[in-house]
Amino acid sequence: MRAREFGVTPGGLPTGKHNAITDVTGVRVGHVTLNRGKNVRTGVTAILPHTGNLFQEKVPGAVFIGNAFGKLAGSTQVQELGTIETPIVLTNTLSVGRAVDAVVGWTLEQPGNEGVRSVNALVGETNDGTLNDIRGRHVSAQDVEKAIENATEGPVTEGAVGAGTGTICFGWKGGVGTASRVLPSGYTVGVLVQTNYGGTLMIEGVPVGEELKPPAAAAAEPDTGSSADGSCMMVIATDAPLGERNLERLAARANFGLARTGSAYSNGSGDFAIAFSAAPGLRVRHGETAARPYTLLPNDAMSPFFQAALEATEEAVYNSLFMATTTTGNGRTIEALPLDGVRALFEKYGRNPAG
Amino acid sequence: MRAREFGVTPGGLPTGKHNAITDVTGVRVGHVTLNRGKNVRTGVTAILPHTGNLFQEKVPGAVFIGNAFGKLAGSTQVQELGTIETPIVLTNTLSVGRAVDAVVGWTLEQPGNEGVRSVNALVGETNDGTLNDIRGRHVSAQDVEKAIENATEGPVTEGAVGAGTGTICFGWKGGVGTASRVLPSGYTVGVLVQTNYGGTLMIEGVPVGEELKPPAAAAAEPDTGSSADGSCMMVIATDAPLGERNLERLAARANFGLARTGSAYSNGSGDFAIAFSAAPGLRVRHGETAARPYTLLPNDAMSPFFQAALEATEEAVYNSLFMATTTTGNGRTIEALPLDGVRALFEKYGRNPAG
Amino acid sequence: MRAREFGVTPGGLPTGKHNAITDVTGVRVGHVTLNRGKNVRTGVTAILPHTGNLFQEKVPGAVFIGNAFGKLAGSTQVQELGTIETPIVLTNTLSVGRAVDAVVGWTLEQPGNEGVRSVNALVGETNDGTLNDIRGRHVSAQDVEKAIENATEGPVTEGAVGAGTGTICFGWKGGVGTASRVLPSGYTVGVLVQTNYGGTLMIEGVPVGEELKPPAAAAAEPDTGSSADGSCMMVIATDAPLGERNLERLAARANFGLARTGSAYSNGSGDFAIAFSAAPGLRVRHGETAARPYTLLPNDAMSPFFQAALEATEEAVYNSLFMATTTTGNGRTIEALPLDGVRALFEKYGRNPAG
Amino acid sequence: MRAREFGVTPGGLPTGKHNAITDVTGVRVGHVTLNRGKNVRTGVTAILPHTGNLFQEKVPGAVFIGNAFGKLAGSTQVQELGTIETPIVLTNTLSVGRAVDAVVGWTLEQPGNEGVRSVNALVGETNDGTLNDIRGRHVSAQDVEKAIENATEGPVTEGAVGAGTGTICFGWKGGVGTASRVLPSGYTVGVLVQTNYGGTLMIEGVPVGEELKPPAAAAAEPDTGSSADGSCMMVIATDAPLGERNLERLAARANFGLARTGSAYSNGSGDFAIAFSAAPGLRVRHGETAARPYTLLPNDAMSPFFQAALEATEEAVYNSLFMATTTTGNGRTIEALPLDGVRALFEKYGRNPAG
Repeated sequence: MRAREFGVTPGGLPTGKHNAITDVTGVRVGHVTLNRGKNVRTGVTAILPHTGNLFQEKVPGAVFIGNAFGKLAGSTQVQELGTIETPIVLTNTLSVGRAVDAVVGWTLEQPGNEGVRSVNALVGETNDGTLNDIRGRHVSAQDVEKAIENATEGPVTEGAVGAGTGTICFGWKGGVGTASRVLPSGYTVGVLVQTNYGGTLMIEGVPVGEELKPPAAAAAEPDTGSSADGSCMMVIATDAPLGERNLERLAARANFGLARTGSAYSNGSGDFAIAFSAAPGLRVRHGETAARPYTLLPNDAMSPFFQAALEATEEAVYNSLFMATTTTGNGRTIEALPLDGVRALFEKYGRNPAG
Repeated sequence: MRAREFGVTPGGLPTGKHNAITDVTGVRVGHVTLNRGKNVRTGVTAILPHTGNLFQEKVPGAVFIGNAFGKLAGSTQVQELGTIETPIVLTNTLSVGRAVDAVVGWTLEQPGNEGVRSVNALVGETNDGTLNDIRGRHVSAQDVEKAIENATEGPVTEGAVGAGTGTICFGWKGGVGTASRVLPSGYTVGVLVQTNYGGTLMIEGVPVGEELKPPAAAAAEPDTGSSADGSCMMVIATDAPLGERNLERLAARANFGLARTGSAYSNGSGDFAIAFSAAPGLRVRHGETAARPYTLLPNDAMSPFFQAALEATEEAVYNSLFMATTTTGNGRTIEALPLDGVRALFEKYGRNPAG
Repeated sequence: MRAREFGVTPGGLPTGKHNAITDVTGVRVGHVTLNRGKNVRTGVTAILPHTGNLFQEKVPGAVFIGNAFGKLAGSTQVQELGTIETPIVLTNTLSVGRAVDAVVGWTLEQPGNEGVRSVNALVGETNDGTLNDIRGRHVSAQDVEKAIENATEGPVTEGAVGAGTGTICFGWKGGVGTASRVLPSGYTVGVLVQTNYGGTLMIEGVPVGEELKPPAAAAAEPDTGSSADGSCMMVIATDAPLGERNLERLAARANFGLARTGSAYSNGSGDFAIAFSAAPGLRVRHGETAARPYTLLPNDAMSPFFQAALEATEEAVYNSLFMATTTTGNGRTIEALPLDGVRALFEKYGRNPAG
Repeated sequence: MRAREFGVTPGGLPTGKHNAITDVTGVRVGHVTLNRGKNVRTGVTAILPHTGNLFQEKVPGAVFIGNAFGKLAGSTQVQELGTIETPIVLTNTLSVGRAVDAVVGWTLEQPGNEGVRSVNALVGETNDGTLNDIRGRHVSAQDVEKAIENATEGPVTEGAVGAGTGTICFGWKGGVGTASRVLPSGYTVGVLVQTNYGGTLMIEGVPVGEELKPPAAAAAEPDTGSSADGSCMMVIATDAPLGERNLERLAARANFGLARTGSAYSNGSGDFAIAFSAAPGLRVRHGETAARPYTLLPNDAMSPFFQAALEATEEAVYNSLFMATTTTGNGRTIEALPLDGVRALFEKYGRNPAG
């Protein structure tokens, strides 16, 4: 059950059709889930900003970093040039190198890219090393390519899939979540998150973590030994004509939105948000040198977008938790968020959950 | 009534003695409140990191910017050199120039500073132009000096005082608020905020703004015409030996903490957090060139500090609202947060307010 | 004599008509020079991006910081919003507060700004405290307003004028300098500098500082006590349609260009470059919220602009030195660059100076 | 012949014993050169900050970005945490993913790292696609490991080796270069560069590029089609106790120093400088949480280090050119810098070259 079916409806803006990042026209998401044997619980999630040749038709993009204990590759060129030229790929911490290599290889092979000799792969990660044999680096180039090729429009599979297969969030099973908002102006903002972070879960202000005390709270990011550690990758898409500076500001709001869910923003977090505009008129053709008009929204139009990013990020996190299932791997079991318990808390705290 | 007396106790860490930024040893706060005639509702608040000569004994400091629609002066040198060398002064948007000049003048006049020819004044602001005749620029150099000279340890006056005299927060009267946390390790983190921002107020997750619908929500930052606009200045002090990089990370958490109160982080926000360490051993003597030992906490000790900054910022915001009083100025009246209404909501939403 | 008349022609691009920042259509420069009694050697220089109401019609702008031991006010809002909304004012270190106040006051008084309640003044500085009684803070609001009102198109007075009245560069008298370049595409890049920095002067690669050993090399920035200290403010204007991200990159090249003159980029430097586009189509109307087309040059068109910024910055620095005159103040005398000595060196080092 | 043997001695500080980055105690450099068949002209260069377990004993480090058209992986975590925990590896643009994977794999295998589940590999690159079949991605994990294992103290092989095997600089054959400076205080600053950038070469102010007009100037970075494009990776090491903030400032000076060689800082440049301190007392033990003393130099001691970084970067670039040999690959030939021609120019321009 997604959070909204449960009755969780953060903020006041309506959702898009699928309440997903794919509500932004042309945006596609693909997963490869690696669920093998006792110890492999990992995967890849790819987000494609449009259906054409991404390298030849770059989208405006930006990155905002909440906390950079993380291995996001490709962000500095995005900040310098204001463009994204590959699929955005999410995976586990120790597989970033292979994923970069795979994205580069995939890009070189696309029709029209025969002369390309420089590719800025944008690859993010969180650490699934509690449930997954992360040191085994089980993600292959083929897995990354398949995630890209699998990408589709429409509803997005959530929970313990793709890059969220082995993640942990607030001590429960996390994963991939998504949500969207439609502004009064008609523009859409969609968010996809890979949740693997800590803190004390609040759901629309109800103190779920404090009340339910998940036993696995200490396990989120094993490497640093902190009970609250963990990371969150956020991807924000919009069909609105936003330039890269305002996209960076939009990405900031995704980071801020994590606070509403109770994020501890701990030392070990890799909290990175990537934002892009899928507006066709803003694409930058590879190698173009002539001035041409870009239709852009000004600063004073941004506040509703910021609200949308805050709301959609919050709901995407909830979806990652509501849709995840109890997962065993690497000798440990992480429970799914117990919806019955949450329902009881919603009643205690004066909310009216659905169902 | 402060928020804690009401029963609002965000987070799990205990407060310091005064639940104020002044719980950090040596930190002092002074206000000058300008409440004259029908239209002057503004003032100055000064935070002094220690009791000595601040220019000769600089403190490690940093700034993290959530949204820079604001006029904070002095931040770039703080980021470059990692030090703060003056009192931190807060006032209204159009008085920053005079306040910088006053801080420079005051610093030049301090005993021991006779040869000083370069001063980096750190002056922040929010826009009180709804309740205050801001264009009149009524803050004088003397007001700034007086705020500095007024600074004392111990309890801090909150609400519609000093730089918070004319501010508006979530559509109710905002102002100055403060709070602190003591870590298990014994270190203290104190926060002081000047609240003038918008959004939909949540108090510990209770949807106060949504339920009570403040009539003045549209008025927070008049210049941009947005209903959600406004700004928040945050100052974070600690007695822990944190270097400037980790202080910047601490300042980030103050910005993130605003989300828990329902901040809209709108386009017109000037959300700046300034963090410093008052640890005596970290002071940088003006002109020193020799290597010497600085005792510092490492990254892996930071998570509890981040939690403290999140909690104390949240509570400081609540204090700014709980302690503010209904204010009329410039032909408008902004109501104080109606505590009876809040109490009723707390009951509705399963909380047990005090009193 | 300007550097070019002497035969110094850095780089390969042609200059604009006046070889000045004012070659960018609409850009105006005004000075107020304070040369009073024995100890007042300071002033104000104002750069106006266009002839209209700057607040109501903001220009795209950006700041790049080479080293931030300096008090530039206003940069953070410029970076956040991508716009400049006031004249750019340069003065001495301890007069920034008064200049901010004056720019705010002047902006409030402009016709059409009656409702304005938030102004982001952009004020830079260098430290003229060797030749000037800087602690006396002799710059008044009237001086700043007069510099703004004095601003004219056409040739720019250089050397020991305006904000350059009391500055020192490479141990010789520095000041204000300007230069411009015209690209093959027809666009113009103009640069104005306020030179007050140290190092070992090279002029087009000729080791002038090493050979002539200026006696005052140690005096540039008295406060820090370092022989190489000092600062450089750079303002870059273009009529090309560059967005704020590419303007920031352009500003970076002005900072880099200082290296060609022998800058030491010392600890005490405040090296800030401000870039803006005066292209009328890019102006942002205050309060506008609708999407509209902005014609912009893409990244792949930037390299010639970078070359222009490097060359024009280098030549502007030389002009500040060539045009400055020996100045006595505050009990010290700083000699002008000895052109005869430079001429002899040019011959020794295989160059053919004019005249 | 190295530049210094030729008589090129930029700046005034003396060099270390080997005039190399390895003059910083404990720093080692290793190359793997791939020179196979007609089209493989690439390689790997690894810089190891100390001889122990780099992951368990991290060094303070920082990155300064001059222009980020480049794929440096790992920089954001370095900036956040202030530490480097792997060898620094340089290779070609399209091999970054494989190199990251290899560095991660190598780190996981080091004795003592059995429990490690998060590794931040720091891998930079330039684009050798003119002389090298870069799309073939011929660098393997084994090559990267071998470069790391090859690392030695003492003299560093320069020119067309390792990551410099196929690079082009100012239209001549570039490559790897290194240099060092010893400060009066006894501290050493060493720099290693991978030169692949464009502009118009100046050597100590002598206009070599303008006079000799290299035919291959247009070929530096083929992907963007600009004649001046290209990149430069810079690594700066010191034994001085500098914290990460001052290391970032040191890295900035390496970027600035490129200007002295005539860098065009073009749009297509990936100009990244990585700085670290090898001072044993500053190492951060993985997982440590207790406060302890770090002996650090203050800001006011930095100017001589900045001078050293400027000088050593300049000389390292010259060394990369002086030591490179004419290289044919991928159907093109790039000539080595013609030292006879340079010698003639030095005479024409009043310099006294050695030999």
